[in-house]
Amino acid sequence: MKTETIRLYENREDVTLTTYLLDDSGEMLNGKSRPAILVCPGGAYAFCSDREAEPIAIRYAAMGYHAFVLRYSVYNKGKMVNPLGDLKVDEDSLYPNAMCDVGAAMLYIRDHSKEWLVDPDRIVLTGFSAGAHNSAMYCTHWDSDILRERFHRPAEDFRPAGAVLGYGYYDWSDFRKQEVTDPFAKAMNEAIDFSYFGTRNPSEEQFAQGSPALHVSKNTPPMFLWTTCGDNTLPSQQTMIMGAALARAGVPYEVHTFEVGDHGLANADQSSASSLEQVNDDVAQWMPLANKWLRRHVPISLPEKPEHGFDPSVFETL
Amino acid sequence: MKTETIRLYENREDVTLTTYLLDDSGEMLNGKSRPAILVCPGGAYAFCSDREAEPIAIRYAAMGYHAFVLRYSVYNKGKMVNPLGDLKVDEDSLYPNAMCDVGAAMLYIRDHSKEWLVDPDRIVLTGFSAGAHNSAMYCTHWDSDILRERFHRPAEDFRPAGAVLGYGYYDWSDFRKQEVTDPFAKAMNEAIDFSYFGTRNPSEEQFAQGSPALHVSKNTPPMFLWTTCGDNTLPSQQTMIMGAALARAGVPYEVHTFEVGDHGLANADQSSASSLEQVNDDVAQWMPLANKWLRRHVPISLPEKPEHGFDPSVFETL
Repeated sequence: MKTETIRLYENREDVTLTTYLLDDSGEMLNGKSRPAILVCPGGAYAFCSDREAEPIAIRYAAMGYHAFVLRYSVYNKGKMVNPLGDLKVDEDSLYPNAMCDVGAAMLYIRDHSKEWLVDPDRIVLTGFSAGAHNSAMYCTHWDSDILRERFHRPAEDFRPAGAVLGYGYYDWSDFRKQEVTDPFAKAMNEAIDFSYFGTRNPSEEQFAQGSPALHVSKNTPPMFLWTTCGDNTLPSQQTMIMGAALARAGVPYEVHTFEVGDHGLANADQSSASSLEQVNDDVAQWMPLANKWLRRHVPISLPEKPEHGFDPSVFETL
Repeated sequence: MKTETIRLYENREDVTLTTYLLDDSGEMLNGKSRPAILVCPGGAYAFCSDREAEPIAIRYAAMGYHAFVLRYSVYNKGKMVNPLGDLKVDEDSLYPNAMCDVGAAMLYIRDHSKEWLVDPDRIVLTGFSAGAHNSAMYCTHWDSDILRERFHRPAEDFRPAGAVLGYGYYDWSDFRKQEVTDPFAKAMNEAIDFSYFGTRNPSEEQFAQGSPALHVSKNTPPMFLWTTCGDNTLPSQQTMIMGAALARAGVPYEVHTFEVGDHGLANADQSSASSLEQVNDDVAQWMPLANKWLRRHVPISLPEKPEHGFDPSVFETL
């Protein structure tokens, strides 16, 4: 496995792509390319959570996919600030920059696809929480002028093959209509708005601009969405709203809502937990379910019978 | 993740340890150590199969364990030779060298456990086919004079915490009593014997020496064994014989024998397959079962509630 962290913009340390590239072997794919998964960790556009980064990438690598972790633009380069304090607008974290970082990552992977044996037509996004929002924004804008104009590349270079999104938000206005009583959650909500829109009170127009559920089209790739009803940070109806939008547009989608479980469970097992509260055997089923879904949408190209590798007949010819 | 291939003996290129070390994070274990898995690929003591190396290590890393692949001593340094031809004894591949390579790897990991955040008391072996044999040999000899004398280290430095073994052989004499009609299989069997014992016709004493099932004791660590009834290379009764030996010695063990499936399925899914013949959804259940078993025997130490990481109260004090 080749692991390396690459800066996506020469002059910035905070936006990086970390590779988890599987070794090629004559006993397996023997030079053929594999699908890849690009991981967007969550963290309320305030940071990129380690719990939703490497442990996720390795789970996908374990399924046979190349994997990448994208650390995208967040407020103050991820250095924690007091959301109740006097915030200064951070130009880097404003819409649509985080979404464009996904585009930069897609181009970087595409431009290295031969070297890395990545199938550029089988790159699937995955994200959690704010990372699910960012992935969904990308999936509903990959064909927009925003990316074409920023990078001067044709839309097809940005096309994702699908998305696996956990406990995200997709309709910002509806999200803000939820009554929030907890002062911390309230402060965090304000901070996300400020990070993404540069104001504590975004307009309905801004909310609409940042809501992937309102931008779903027939060009939106297939999606696998999951969440938990017990999520006290991002209400699970956000996933229902997105599912409905995909259904209306005729985009193939799958939804799994688990009844019990709080926000931020990531793999929901030992691999991503900081305490036993984040281990939940029911919710952990999302990953095997996602594995089956991926196998349907971006299968690894395998022949019916072995074509190479350890071939007994070698002995007969020696 | 830190991936690196390390020579275990300065003067040899063929015996190596490849690391799959998980990154530490303040959001997760925050400097605490993790259990580790040491992978011994199979390959009939003729080579070390890539299909039973990295894809296996990454599956364990995805569960939250540090992982290592050991490429141990095999005949002619893994360079394929004709087993029907005129074989020359290779001193390196003879008993007990491959087993001692496991010891060298255990010591190397133990000696780097602080740097790598590995819990030295929770190192579990895993192996397939000849690699399962090698692991089982180690597990039944870690407390023997052989390792102590070779490395001048106390027995406790070699103690493994358990073993997960797939489609192995454990009673060499019984294995050889199976009628083999296929000329290739017959040649391979002779080659394994020659590689390990230096003769095409080992004595019953040699067979006994190389049979882990005959060396099980109360010091043998807990084992998880799995195989397939359809294995036409290594008869599944080998696993039954080993299970019986563990039961008699009172060693905790678990056995899963799947009815359908040939030899060498590794993960039995896309991640390790060279063709669809090596994808078998039933057999692929061995890994989730092993995961549960490991969680019982070598759990990752997690507190009941978060002790660190993203702490909301940080805002109150800013």
